[in-house]
Amino acid sequence: MTVNEKIAALRQAARDAGGHGVLVMTSDPHNNEYLPDHYNALPWFTGFTGENATLVVTLTGSALWVDGRFYVQGDKQLAGTEISCMHAGAAGVPTVEEYLAANFTAGQTLLLDGSCAPAATVEKYRAALEKAGAALAERDLVSPLWQDRPALPDTPCFLLSVEQTGATAAEKLAALRAELHKAGATALAVPALDCLGWLLNLRARDLPCTPLAVAFGFVTERDCTLFIAPGRLTDADAETLAEQGVALRGYEEFLPYVQALADETVLVDKGATNYALYAALTANPSLKVVEGRDPITALKGVKNPVELENLRECHIRDGVAMVRFEMDLEKALAEGRTLHETDIEEMLKARRREQPGYLEDSFETIAAWGPNAAMMHYHAVKGGPDAEIRRQGMLLVDTGGQYDCGTTDITRTYSLEPAVYMSDEDRQFYTRVLQAHIEMARAKFLDYATGFALDTFARGPLWAHKINYRCGTGHSVGYISSVHEGPQSLRPHNEVVFQPGMTITDEPGVYETDKVGIRIENELECVDAGTNQYGRWLAFEPLTFVPINLDPVIWDEMTVAQRNWINDYHAKVYHLLAPRLNKQEKEWLAKKCAPLVQLNMPLYQFRTLEEVLLEKEREEAEKKKAARDRQAEQKAAAQKAAAETVKAITAETPAE
Amino acid sequence: MTVNEKIAALRQAARDAGGHGVLVMTSDPHNNEYLPDHYNALPWFTGFTGENATLVVTLTGSALWVDGRFYVQGDKQLAGTEISCMHAGAAGVPTVEEYLAANFTAGQTLLLDGSCAPAATVEKYRAALEKAGAALAERDLVSPLWQDRPALPDTPCFLLSVEQTGATAAEKLAALRAELHKAGATALAVPALDCLGWLLNLRARDLPCTPLAVAFGFVTERDCTLFIAPGRLTDADAETLAEQGVALRGYEEFLPYVQALADETVLVDKGATNYALYAALTANPSLKVVEGRDPITALKGVKNPVELENLRECHIRDGVAMVRFEMDLEKALAEGRTLHETDIEEMLKARRREQPGYLEDSFETIAAWGPNAAMMHYHAVKGGPDAEIRRQGMLLVDTGGQYDCGTTDITRTYSLEPAVYMSDEDRQFYTRVLQAHIEMARAKFLDYATGFALDTFARGPLWAHKINYRCGTGHSVGYISSVHEGPQSLRPHNEVVFQPGMTITDEPGVYETDKVGIRIENELECVDAGTNQYGRWLAFEPLTFVPINLDPVIWDEMTVAQRNWINDYHAKVYHLLAPRLNKQEKEWLAKKCAPLVQLNMPLYQFRTLEEVLLEKEREEAEKKKAARDRQAEQKAAAQKAAAETVKAITAETPAE
Repeated sequence: MTVNEKIAALRQAARDAGGHGVLVMTSDPHNNEYLPDHYNALPWFTGFTGENATLVVTLTGSALWVDGRFYVQGDKQLAGTEISCMHAGAAGVPTVEEYLAANFTAGQTLLLDGSCAPAATVEKYRAALEKAGAALAERDLVSPLWQDRPALPDTPCFLLSVEQTGATAAEKLAALRAELHKAGATALAVPALDCLGWLLNLRARDLPCTPLAVAFGFVTERDCTLFIAPGRLTDADAETLAEQGVALRGYEEFLPYVQALADETVLVDKGATNYALYAALTANPSLKVVEGRDPITALKGVKNPVELENLRECHIRDGVAMVRFEMDLEKALAEGRTLHETDIEEMLKARRREQPGYLEDSFETIAAWGPNAAMMHYHAVKGGPDAEIRRQGMLLVDTGGQYDCGTTDITRTYSLEPAVYMSDEDRQFYTRVLQAHIEMARAKFLDYATGFALDTFARGPLWAHKINYRCGTGHSVGYISSVHEGPQSLRPHNEVVFQPGMTITDEPGVYETDKVGIRIENELECVDAGTNQYGRWLAFEPLTFVPINLDPVIWDEMTVAQRNWINDYHAKVYHLLAPRLNKQEKEWLAKKCAPLVQLNMPLYQFRTLEEVLLEKEREEAEKKKAARDRQAEQKAAAQKAAAETVKAITAETPAE
Repeated sequence: MTVNEKIAALRQAARDAGGHGVLVMTSDPHNNEYLPDHYNALPWFTGFTGENATLVVTLTGSALWVDGRFYVQGDKQLAGTEISCMHAGAAGVPTVEEYLAANFTAGQTLLLDGSCAPAATVEKYRAALEKAGAALAERDLVSPLWQDRPALPDTPCFLLSVEQTGATAAEKLAALRAELHKAGATALAVPALDCLGWLLNLRARDLPCTPLAVAFGFVTERDCTLFIAPGRLTDADAETLAEQGVALRGYEEFLPYVQALADETVLVDKGATNYALYAALTANPSLKVVEGRDPITALKGVKNPVELENLRECHIRDGVAMVRFEMDLEKALAEGRTLHETDIEEMLKARRREQPGYLEDSFETIAAWGPNAAMMHYHAVKGGPDAEIRRQGMLLVDTGGQYDCGTTDITRTYSLEPAVYMSDEDRQFYTRVLQAHIEMARAKFLDYATGFALDTFARGPLWAHKINYRCGTGHSVGYISSVHEGPQSLRPHNEVVFQPGMTITDEPGVYETDKVGIRIENELECVDAGTNQYGRWLAFEPLTFVPINLDPVIWDEMTVAQRNWINDYHAKVYHLLAPRLNKQEKEWLAKKCAPLVQLNMPLYQFRTLEEVLLEKEREEAEKKKAARDRQAEQKAAAQKAAAETVKAITAETPAE
């Protein structure tokens, strides 16, 4: 079938169903950022293979909205079809809502599959249609027409051990129920795969770069049900889950279960729920719905001491792989080999595969040469855009790994030529990005600081020169899970207050179109920095330990505190990675981590490598003790909360 | 009458009125920070002369709540009376609400004068009483008993000229009506004296340090009424106001007017309205009440170009006075004269009185020697706490003036001994406060930044050493009005977005109990810093130009950018003040403003005094042009808004 034939078939199906149009969007029942093929209908129907698109087919026409990253690709892939390529956000281009309002008239109906559309979005479309006197109805027209539709993912599921997660599913369920109780709710649907994976310590390999299982969960005060295709769990894992109070049902039984549920107050986060689920919950007269934030997001945003200890280990493994990769890169460049951007991903994978517990990359590596790095979402493709890495300017590499003990996310921007040949402007940009990174990493703050307030630390050094980056400074990273998660982030308007155990990326950058792109990214851990008469202090400690390129730095612009931070950081990098490297690698690393010659610095501010290493050891011993204490405390608190919840629930339940 | 007799009389009056207790608090109908004597009943009834207190008299006892600043004073002044002194906020001390709930039983009634209590506070008390089955009723028991009660203030009123204010009352009324329309309201009560003063360009000398008139305002789409004691305005001013669309009525006619009003939708800011007014508005069935922020606060928070030009002038005058004061202080200390803290206020007043247009101080000068400066609200009193200024440590002076062209607020912390004798710790504290001040003053930021996000610039250098100050970094300053005003402030949780024309104080500090207090304060003006590909940039320019004490600074800790800021600032101080000083004063100032010797700095970063002055001249010419342009634009916008409001109102009014 041609694209036009497929669109015609959709149109006819709408007509047959009594409708006057159909809407299909890049969305699935789990609100995934990247869809499993089973739910990614648009490429088959339209030929467009990009992300984040919306198709509207009316009785007389059709249009596909694509965002700024995909204008060119959309125009190309839709050429020769009846579908108009709509450049979403461009001047003069109507929004989907405006298009619906203009193309539907009184009495007409738009059909869409509510399970593959977020509730908040559908409500916006419904409002636009109702203004025109038209209506919106749920109907899956896609499934019957989609030939050779990929099956649902069916990779082997596995449970993480308590040594990996630090808390059992039963403990996490108790904590969740305590939060639900606080919110005045008794039940929660869990459609989001990362939330479900965290709650039940469940993983699989259903999604690219994200080791999660396609399934649903539903939690009440007494029950927890996992809706997953039969046979995906081993008998042993099913038994373990049963012991933790988790029952199993089929994936398809989820909506019927919700429709049949009675006498619960269900907490719903409208922005993170598909429309079919939202409609089923609100249409069920035996349920009460209260709107609020999903408490799992906040719970999993604070890593527990076991997760943190494992994260430190996985970052050392990733650091070793990054060091070896950089040596490989230097060697290839020195030997004059021809390298393309797409070669970088393979070079990195080869080194990560040597590391124990490596599962896969945590996202597709961004390797961008020279001006390509100015495009924040650039991704080289073999046979597509894939520049040769010339010995000129810089190479930005943003990459990460999934390990059996955590998830990493790191960016380094490498020099491809000696600093003396680089432009002053590029060296200034690089210096300021490094300053921004350091000012964020060395920030100390009181325990009321939000992501918005802290974001200023990183932007200050760039803002001073009227430079900004049009994205957040950093995001939370999942634990053996999605590389982007909430709720904390370092960005304008984020109101989440930081607390110890939160992890966050620190990735300021400069992006000058057609000129240069620079980003330096470490993951940081928020730690307690002690209490004094002013209150409780927090700070960040790096989780990522990989040398930072210092070649382009203009040293006159760096403050003493910034130089000291670099010396401390590099000493720790050497201390942590060297024991896992061979002699040649150690020599290479020692050179990259050598203390700066601090011209014009009073001597008392120098710290020798030995002093730093000694302090590091002391710190580690203290940290381990603190972690043990905190874990014991958290466990006691969780048990207490669980006991109180049980007590509260018991008190509220009339005697039977 | 003794205090106990007065309390007994209050108790009997409550009984006679059918009540079971009475509450009196430090509050007046205008929500003033400092009350006119006419409304300050507590000193007469209790003998307590501090601020911010609440008296509760029940049938069997009485208690007065005082805040932390007044624990000692309260204990002393209430000793020998029947009144218990309640240390508000101290451990184990019940709140007023808790006390009411514990001391009133079902069927009992607490009486209070609703005109002298904020609506939000009364609602809190009412809720506490209702939980106990008791009630709250409005009744003024104070006035009949209060012997020799001071009259309402009756100083001569005057109108500011358009050369002083940049906008007529009619223009401001049009802008206000446009804002009311946006908020879906048609009317606004204006009980706050600073809002009323701004709206009608009305001033008097009714309050200490705040040149405002005790009066009410009420604005509808067609009318504006000023409620003020008859005869306080000259005939000429009354005529001017009439021309601007403002009618006059007596001060006492305000509440009856509100009670008789019909067919208006009144915008009410519950936190800023007295309870009697709130009750009158909500009890009137012909009015609709919508809750929201008073738009006048936001309007007056952005100074217009004429106000800004005048503010620059008044800060130069104040700067000249400050320079002469510092010379006087140095001389007195050098001559070995005995000085006390209370002498400072008089020395300053003497120098301010030499300046044209000086009205009075904008608040009572805080002069605090050594450890006294650690108390943020310290105020020396002749015969009370009044330390001798010894030649040791530092002297903090926080002071300000009211002029015919604006209001100032400045703090300097002077050295009383050579730095070499000061403790390292004190010098570190001083250096970090200066760094905090400079980082705030030199911040550049995008036009979405809130007070909370910007606050981080100032706190960062202190936070880095785990030091904090338990107050905001800065507040807005009224224009020939209250020295503290909203809505913008640099402090945690403030969500007001900065915009050009806003002024703000920059006053970080260190306050170490029993050791040292340091604060460095300038007023800043928020200015447009140009637009580029990243958006619209804003920055601050100092309004205050007075040399900053550099003696205690540890230069190794200052960055190059901070040193450059000091050189630029001091060059501008000299440039602006020198033309108004005599030869000897000029010499003194040149020494205080001499460029730093920038050891270890690359030469290209130096700027000569000539370069700075040349640039200053260029900047001033540009600023004047921009101000003219902006004024023209604002006038056009105001006229357009007013025209649209009139159109909208006309469209909504059915033809008669």
